[in-house]
Amino acid sequence: MKPTLPDWFPVLRWARGYGRGGELSADLTAAAVVTLLLIPQSLAYALLAGLPAVTGLYASMLPLVVYALMGTSPVLAAGPAALRSIMSLAAVGAVASVGSADFIAASLLLAAMVGGLLLLMGALRMGFIAGFLSAPVLSGFVTASGLLIVMSQLPHLLGVPLRGSNLGVFVQSLWQQAGALHPLTLGVGLAAMLALWAAKRWLQAALLRLGLPPGGADLVAKAAPLLIIVIAIGLTQALGWHGQGLAVVGSVPGGLPPFTLGAVFGVAPATLQALLLPALLIAMLTFVEQISIAQAFAAKRRERVDSDAEMRAMGAANLAAGLTGGHAVGASFSRSAVLHGGGARTPAAGLLTALLLGTVALFFTPWLYHLPLAVLAATILMALGSLLDFGSFARTWRYSRADFAAQALTFGVTLGVDLVSGLTVGVIASLTLYIWRSSRPHIAVVGNVPGTEHYRNVLRHEVITHPHILSLRVDENLFFANTRFLEDRVNAEVTGRPELRHVVLQCTAVNTIDTSALESLLGINQHLKDAGVQLHLSEVKGPVMDRLQRSDLLQKLTGQVFMTHHQAVAALAEAPADRSA
Amino acid sequence: MKPTLPDWFPVLRWARGYGRGGELSADLTAAAVVTLLLIPQSLAYALLAGLPAVTGLYASMLPLVVYALMGTSPVLAAGPAALRSIMSLAAVGAVASVGSADFIAASLLLAAMVGGLLLLMGALRMGFIAGFLSAPVLSGFVTASGLLIVMSQLPHLLGVPLRGSNLGVFVQSLWQQAGALHPLTLGVGLAAMLALWAAKRWLQAALLRLGLPPGGADLVAKAAPLLIIVIAIGLTQALGWHGQGLAVVGSVPGGLPPFTLGAVFGVAPATLQALLLPALLIAMLTFVEQISIAQAFAAKRRERVDSDAEMRAMGAANLAAGLTGGHAVGASFSRSAVLHGGGARTPAAGLLTALLLGTVALFFTPWLYHLPLAVLAATILMALGSLLDFGSFARTWRYSRADFAAQALTFGVTLGVDLVSGLTVGVIASLTLYIWRSSRPHIAVVGNVPGTEHYRNVLRHEVITHPHILSLRVDENLFFANTRFLEDRVNAEVTGRPELRHVVLQCTAVNTIDTSALESLLGINQHLKDAGVQLHLSEVKGPVMDRLQRSDLLQKLTGQVFMTHHQAVAALAEAPADRSA
Repeated sequence: MKPTLPDWFPVLRWARGYGRGGELSADLTAAAVVTLLLIPQSLAYALLAGLPAVTGLYASMLPLVVYALMGTSPVLAAGPAALRSIMSLAAVGAVASVGSADFIAASLLLAAMVGGLLLLMGALRMGFIAGFLSAPVLSGFVTASGLLIVMSQLPHLLGVPLRGSNLGVFVQSLWQQAGALHPLTLGVGLAAMLALWAAKRWLQAALLRLGLPPGGADLVAKAAPLLIIVIAIGLTQALGWHGQGLAVVGSVPGGLPPFTLGAVFGVAPATLQALLLPALLIAMLTFVEQISIAQAFAAKRRERVDSDAEMRAMGAANLAAGLTGGHAVGASFSRSAVLHGGGARTPAAGLLTALLLGTVALFFTPWLYHLPLAVLAATILMALGSLLDFGSFARTWRYSRADFAAQALTFGVTLGVDLVSGLTVGVIASLTLYIWRSSRPHIAVVGNVPGTEHYRNVLRHEVITHPHILSLRVDENLFFANTRFLEDRVNAEVTGRPELRHVVLQCTAVNTIDTSALESLLGINQHLKDAGVQLHLSEVKGPVMDRLQRSDLLQKLTGQVFMTHHQAVAALAEAPADRSA
Repeated sequence: MKPTLPDWFPVLRWARGYGRGGELSADLTAAAVVTLLLIPQSLAYALLAGLPAVTGLYASMLPLVVYALMGTSPVLAAGPAALRSIMSLAAVGAVASVGSADFIAASLLLAAMVGGLLLLMGALRMGFIAGFLSAPVLSGFVTASGLLIVMSQLPHLLGVPLRGSNLGVFVQSLWQQAGALHPLTLGVGLAAMLALWAAKRWLQAALLRLGLPPGGADLVAKAAPLLIIVIAIGLTQALGWHGQGLAVVGSVPGGLPPFTLGAVFGVAPATLQALLLPALLIAMLTFVEQISIAQAFAAKRRERVDSDAEMRAMGAANLAAGLTGGHAVGASFSRSAVLHGGGARTPAAGLLTALLLGTVALFFTPWLYHLPLAVLAATILMALGSLLDFGSFARTWRYSRADFAAQALTFGVTLGVDLVSGLTVGVIASLTLYIWRSSRPHIAVVGNVPGTEHYRNVLRHEVITHPHILSLRVDENLFFANTRFLEDRVNAEVTGRPELRHVVLQCTAVNTIDTSALESLLGINQHLKDAGVQLHLSEVKGPVMDRLQRSDLLQKLTGQVFMTHHQAVAALAEAPADRSA
């Protein structure tokens, strides 16, 4: 099915009749609350990506508008998000030095490339590619990324220049600089962390006890991060902390997002090539994260998520980010929860968020000058809880040692080498593991359960067998990874049984036979023929049989295809020896 | 099971009592015939690899001895083989210029690396890695390689310098040089091809009609390639063709293989890194080829092939090749057929072949001076039949369009770009295709067949369903590639059915649930819980259930696990509504 125009732009569906059911006031309320959260987050995540703070504001305007027009989820909050920022820093940091004009241009290009790849994958319905990221690999990667984010923020919190591209470099740097930490910076940062933690934990309940109505208490609690920032700005300015060495955001240019097509296209081709793999990994990660967030909320609302539409929408949003001065964007779980809790009813909530944030960008950026970086670092660190999931390692270890190995490998390489290598190694490990598992399927020699037409494993049941018939049941699809195993097994079973005349493969559990397995069956057929043994098949499923009709296996087969395994054994037991076959 | 010393060296098993049953005379006869074939082939395949002819002789001595001590197949002929030579040329040609000392050293290093990788894979029982090469990809690659071999030999046959690293370069070069071809070279080459073809087709029958005994006729027919070479050498020397511009082998140093450890270790680390991927691909290819040849003959003889031992043996043989001046070696189908037909009974046949060839290397190399390169090219071209399998494309197209796409892509990239890229792209295509297929498993909504306890697809059968119960049967293992699909499907089925209270997953066809799928089931369980629907499982297989016991799914599951699907539906139909769950 080719997607139609309303499939590409679901806004064409929900915009008709918008506002008649009170959607506008619901969406506006939710948008206002999410904007309070988005202002500090967008500034912080821009710094996390190694970019000027204003980049975060730009990434929170046009991308949100685009997502609102093309997305299907009313509560999915698109925009800056921690993981993408640290990945962007790692990827772009490998091709340009942080802070340079090249670095900014390459960051925009990366966002545009992520967008282009997501759009392409969405248009070609290639969402399955995201399946390459298995859950253990993803959680190993995300937890390691969380630790890397901590490492990246500690310099801002301690007031010393540390380098933290990986664990080894970081620990060495921390050791050297431990004596040089800046007490004022550390004090401001820790105070902000404490305030954020206390606000999250106690503020709402305290306000309710003070007699505030529930709605008001909730709004104040949600605005707490912004309030803490306002207080920090006020104190810094009033007490002249910047002059005492406290690092601040500095001047943030006001106004609407610039058009940065020129910057994106000005990047050297070698940079483009170097960013391709990171862009692909970020695109996969963004999609996986987005769909899991969208599905979690859709389930609560009994709504349907259209994966392809979501992929296209986030692709267009990233393209918009790259072309209007923003870094790569994704879905934010915390802000989506706020939209859901705030009662958002259509994607217009995102559109309204962008409008509110645009107002801030137009009129309030001068106020951000004295915002301490340590406070933004505190904001990032306090939001990391959802990324660090050490319990997942224990759960995976208990459930599957092999999956744990892939998880630990991903975690180790991400932390010890870099983010792109970590995720790449993880994907390769998942695939190798899966091929390894499928390469040795369960194959049972079966025999007849007396008095029935059932055939069961000879090792587990008392069954009847015939010396000149070998019955094998294969409990797996036949495909390239396990053809050799099947050949080996048949070969081994036939060796040393000179009385054997018939091999019957019971195909109950075989859902597909690919071309490699077909060749393999032809080979087994020929090998058995050379050894004077006939090959038969039984209980072949309809679709598998349809496909086999299009090959020459059925003509070349020395034996027959039987409807049931019992029919096969009954027929072959009566006419035992046919050496000529 | 850890392999024992006799597992590593099967010679310890068959050497005891060797010769008492007439093995020596049988093995010696087979070895003599195979040596007649090996002399021209070893010289030709060395030239194919861009190396001096003597390299082929070195690759035919110690490697054969090592394989004889460690291999399990009495008839597998190890040594120089066409595919490995052209791959070696392609890989080493990318890091050093053909003919230089660096090129020779890198070729030896490549052989040693292939050997090291095979030994490692054999010791770690990682033969499954070869499963990554699916049959269509392999045949697409082999056919393209065959064409590249033709391209590489045409210059020797036409007497003009052509460059043929890929199709584009070759055609361009052919166009430019067409006028410059050397008639004498072409004449000698075509005459040799004609003679080889005629000898293969008619010689044996003609000799029998002339009254020769069958054994003698057979031996003469097998020695024909060597006889043609002897005649060509005689004519070239007698008529002074070398002086008229016919390229010849030139001086071949005599004596036993040198010890070339120094050359191998003298190669730059960057070269080692560049050769790693080609070495891995050659190792995989060598193993796949070797096992399919070994199994074909083992089946005829009702013998067992030990894949791990074979891998170790060929690994050690390649290591030996690299350390004694030889290029990468593999199994030869044509020479294995000669060993089998000649009556070889133990791996000693390979040992004896090496001894006979050593005699040639010691005493007869001066005779090779006037051997025309055009005749060796003819030898190679006439042996290509088994590599070019165009019929395979038609068969694959008929059987599976997706597999054909992977095959055609591999063929195209191998021919149009290079051998290493072709095989790499093929492996990636196979994997992607498999993940794509598994990412959308067959999932059926099932209902009760009236009057039975069977449940069948509601779309294909007249069945009974309940509005508040959804029964889903998943016809595939649950793993990372298809978890999203399952989530989407459950999500879609639940949307718009407010009366739904229970979802039952029938797990008859689920052989494994990996960690990703476990997380996914936990997510589905939570999503359904949020929507007021209980999740149940039925007919979970024993091993799958054992593993689930080690997770927290069974505690968190809102519903129950039922032995049979019918029990589930019967129980849930009676107690319909449990909104609180």
